[in-house]
Amino acid sequence: MDYKLTYISRLFQKTSNKIYEHYIITRIWHLLNNDEIEMIAQQYVRLENKYALTDIYFPQFNIHVEVNEPAHYITPEKIEFDINRNESIINISQHQIQIFDCRKPIEEIHNDIDDFIKHINSLISNQLKNNTFKSWNPNQDRNPLYWKEQKAITSNDNIALNNVEDICTLFDADFSKTKRGFLRKGAIAHPQNRNIIIWWPSSKKRQKWQNFYDAEKGIIIEENIDEEQNSNHLNYLLSVNETRLLFYHYKDFLGLTSYRFKGAFKLEKEESENKKIIIWKKISDKFNLLTSEVE
Amino acid sequence: MDYKLTYISRLFQKTSNKIYEHYIITRIWHLLNNDEIEMIAQQYVRLENKYALTDIYFPQFNIHVEVNEPAHYITPEKIEFDINRNESIINISQHQIQIFDCRKPIEEIHNDIDDFIKHINSLISNQLKNNTFKSWNPNQDRNPLYWKEQKAITSNDNIALNNVEDICTLFDADFSKTKRGFLRKGAIAHPQNRNIIIWWPSSKKRQKWQNFYDAEKGIIIEENIDEEQNSNHLNYLLSVNETRLLFYHYKDFLGLTSYRFKGAFKLEKEESENKKIIIWKKISDKFNLLTSEVE
Repeated sequence: MDYKLTYISRLFQKTSNKIYEHYIITRIWHLLNNDEIEMIAQQYVRLENKYALTDIYFPQFNIHVEVNEPAHYITPEKIEFDINRNESIINISQHQIQIFDCRKPIEEIHNDIDDFIKHINSLISNQLKNNTFKSWNPNQDRNPLYWKEQKAITSNDNIALNNVEDICTLFDADFSKTKRGFLRKGAIAHPQNRNIIIWWPSSKKRQKWQNFYDAEKGIIIEENIDEEQNSNHLNYLLSVNETRLLFYHYKDFLGLTSYRFKGAFKLEKEESENKKIIIWKKISDKFNLLTSEVE
Repeated sequence: MDYKLTYISRLFQKTSNKIYEHYIITRIWHLLNNDEIEMIAQQYVRLENKYALTDIYFPQFNIHVEVNEPAHYITPEKIEFDINRNESIINISQHQIQIFDCRKPIEEIHNDIDDFIKHINSLISNQLKNNTFKSWNPNQDRNPLYWKEQKAITSNDNIALNNVEDICTLFDADFSKTKRGFLRKGAIAHPQNRNIIIWWPSSKKRQKWQNFYDAEKGIIIEENIDEEQNSNHLNYLLSVNETRLLFYHYKDFLGLTSYRFKGAFKLEKEESENKKIIIWKKISDKFNLLTSEVE
């Protein structure tokens, strides 16, 4: 099936519980009528001591959409809570928020959506003029051959590979060597540079391994829940000099899985040894595919 | 809340299980962008010995939409079954069917929908030219004051009242008299013509009463599940000369309830007496609100 069709169809389905919100989201997508625009549902926004999830986010324009169903207006406290929350989002993220009020008659809601679409289209025109428009292109993002042609990859690129075979394709690594009996290995050495390990840890626990990735700190903790195995693994890592290319594996809100490139990481040897915790720290956002070196 | 907004939003939600079908239905609605067009989900179509439910039906144009998800193409038998079913619908109902194939890439699906919308819009233009276009107007259909102004009602009108109070408004009947203690009565005499009984039976069983309405035969069977009460009621009806104005109450696929006018009915005395079943037969589709008489 077509990836964009599946992505948007799943997004529609996941947002179908709140019926008016759903009506507005489907209308925005269909009337924008532009499949180069990305929509993200349930976008995480970090606030001071908490976080918010917005109904829809347009990453190309830094605009969030919030659809207020009638329940948003039940008490003055609820209304004030929403206002404060939206102000926090605007102040902290520097993003914009577009609010739709579902209590209006259908004609007014349609007019509000038409205005919003005009606004988005004018932003697109500006970006096209300034050559800053980045088309939503998941088929390209998910194609290892496309990234290979780019000659270098960075964690700012929207690299989202489908599976381990595609990761191997990107580096000309031997996919057959990622299998160990019935199990899939969690990493493979780079074929040209054996100190570089291509690694695809998951956000979910697998066998005895679990990982905690903190994007903001640029750190990933690798842990085996068996204490002895964890200690042996740490000792091994302290004895070698691995650089890891991190392809973090996770399932998004829509249930679609991706391996996303997060940069090159090295073991924080001193801290890891002291705390008996395997801590990897990002040393670079970029890897050169031609020289096979971190840049 | 706006009735049309609620109706279409519920229709979207009810069709959100099949994700590609849902994508196509939402797109058709939003790109038609014309809230005078009615869409009905899960339209019942009677075939020879069975019936079919189509995904979407446009009653103003007698066009059904069938969205074929990938599962429609799993076996040659399934494909043939669908072809035969669709031919039956076309032959028996004389309606048209528009089929969408979800296996196509998103651009082709968009093109198919654009073509369909052009087709619908050309049909609208023709109907407007011939003065045959009937706008979808549920707010009017549900407004008793609108129907009162029409001076006569027929079962071909799309009369769909919200509640018993609105039925009373239509006939200037005293709503307060429809209550019997905690219970709501199932009928009330016409204030100007006491032989005419305004009746609002339900498609669901209520207390000991149940009704079986057959639109094609123009018959409704009234039954009390208590045999003695049923017999007493039949004897009473045989002794009088009631004409009933039927407002049939039911909940549609979207969970929205309506009282729909189905015409004037009289007891089939001979058959009812012989079979000991209370059988009402339609004697007219029309009732004159000015003269308070069946026409």
